[in-house]
Amino acid sequence: MSDTLNPDEIKEYVDFLHILGDAAAEITLKSFRAPLDVVNKGRKLQSDFDPVTRADRDAEAAIRRLILDKYPAHNLIGEEHGQAINPDNQDGMNWIIDPIDGTRAFIAGIPLWGTLIAVNDGKGPVIGMMDQPYLKERYIGSPLGSSLNGSPIHCRPCPDISQATLSTTDPVQLFATMDDRRAFEKVAAMANMVRNGYDCYAYMMVASGHMDVVIESGLESYDIQPLIPIIENAGGIVTCWDGGSPNQGGQIVASGDRALHAQVLDILNS
Amino acid sequence: MSDTLNPDEIKEYVDFLHILGDAAAEITLKSFRAPLDVVNKGRKLQSDFDPVTRADRDAEAAIRRLILDKYPAHNLIGEEHGQAINPDNQDGMNWIIDPIDGTRAFIAGIPLWGTLIAVNDGKGPVIGMMDQPYLKERYIGSPLGSSLNGSPIHCRPCPDISQATLSTTDPVQLFATMDDRRAFEKVAAMANMVRNGYDCYAYMMVASGHMDVVIESGLESYDIQPLIPIIENAGGIVTCWDGGSPNQGGQIVASGDRALHAQVLDILNS
Repeated sequence: MSDTLNPDEIKEYVDFLHILGDAAAEITLKSFRAPLDVVNKGRKLQSDFDPVTRADRDAEAAIRRLILDKYPAHNLIGEEHGQAINPDNQDGMNWIIDPIDGTRAFIAGIPLWGTLIAVNDGKGPVIGMMDQPYLKERYIGSPLGSSLNGSPIHCRPCPDISQATLSTTDPVQLFATMDDRRAFEKVAAMANMVRNGYDCYAYMMVASGHMDVVIESGLESYDIQPLIPIIENAGGIVTCWDGGSPNQGGQIVASGDRALHAQVLDILNS
Repeated sequence: MSDTLNPDEIKEYVDFLHILGDAAAEITLKSFRAPLDVVNKGRKLQSDFDPVTRADRDAEAAIRRLILDKYPAHNLIGEEHGQAINPDNQDGMNWIIDPIDGTRAFIAGIPLWGTLIAVNDGKGPVIGMMDQPYLKERYIGSPLGSSLNGSPIHCRPCPDISQATLSTTDPVQLFATMDDRRAFEKVAAMANMVRNGYDCYAYMMVASGHMDVVIESGLESYDIQPLIPIIENAGGIVTCWDGGSPNQGGQIVASGDRALHAQVLDILNS
């Protein structure tokens, strides 16, 4: 249980996350799979990426407006609109927002991107949401438990990498350095199965017991903070490769089983 | 238009594909994301892969029974139950079945696997279906057009690889040879965006204008035949890397734009 938030406060934030998720979905779904000739109508010069950039920005702006209406003193940290730190923020609460995690999946029509929002009490993320509105899947994690569309989810036991399903978003292009890529490949060579390409969705498969470990590097704080309460309150663990706090992003490992996690850290650092 | 099937015959087969898709979905969805402790109940020794193998086999068996009831003279070629060639098959019709394409995605909880069925007139696949029942997405292609859940779909223009979104299922492990992998990497280095990990679903993103080209090797006939009519009747093209018929699988390229396709074949063979 969080030592800053009591159960009633947690419930209030979770209720509000549903409102934020609904508001973001209304904006993102309009651009997902929209034919370019519709989206581009009346516009002269723009790249293929513009409709997504616009959905990303508009969704974050809508989320920020709703938060500031309800919690005007809170800090906001978002992918698209940066940080808004309020000097009068008495209770030290922060909202961490990634309106569309997995923009490349979004652009390619793949429905595994997500709207990520974390409630951070100043020490770390306490409540997190990953919403995939095309699939109508909403994952929420808090000290009261983790759930998919209201039904409890749990990580599965998997104490050894030889039995594990491992995932990363892109094993070729997205590791921050070649050393990171080689370290991932050491783990991959020992895994039972490797499936890549799923962004935030892979972490939700760990939280719901369908995969065992996700390894990435080069993540931002808003990429990972909203996912941490979902995985941890489902029984899993998220750290950096060195075992330290994952809250600032960087090199991330998320595992459904603590014994597996320790083993994977050993391999990554060997 | 097919020179063997008239529009009424095509409609009859399409109607029947819906019946087959519904029957397969009833079986596959029971095992998708089923917790192992439920699926394994009362069974003593089995690998993690068994529930899926069983869903795969049971779905194909159900599909074959329905086909043989309605078209007892037709030939059946399936991933799980092999070939059944009928010497009395007067009209030379064949059904090509892959009950769960993307079994690794299925095992990992990723809803991008598909039930694939082609109607082949003895010269090649004329009608194809890719059904993703968790997403409730059913792609069908025939000489009458290609559709997603009954709405027409079309490939998008993209004449040059520098503008293209490229996909393969696994850029590291799934190419049949290192030469194949290096050839893919040449194309990938020139593409605007590369997104991997989607099995049959990537081909449907080409058919519906969200991706531009898929490159794979080591495919079986049942992996690709059901997808060909969907892509071709949406305006795209599918061949082997040497430009020959893709009907027997092997090295496959599927493109939404014929100019892009010619360019990609040049790069693969350079």
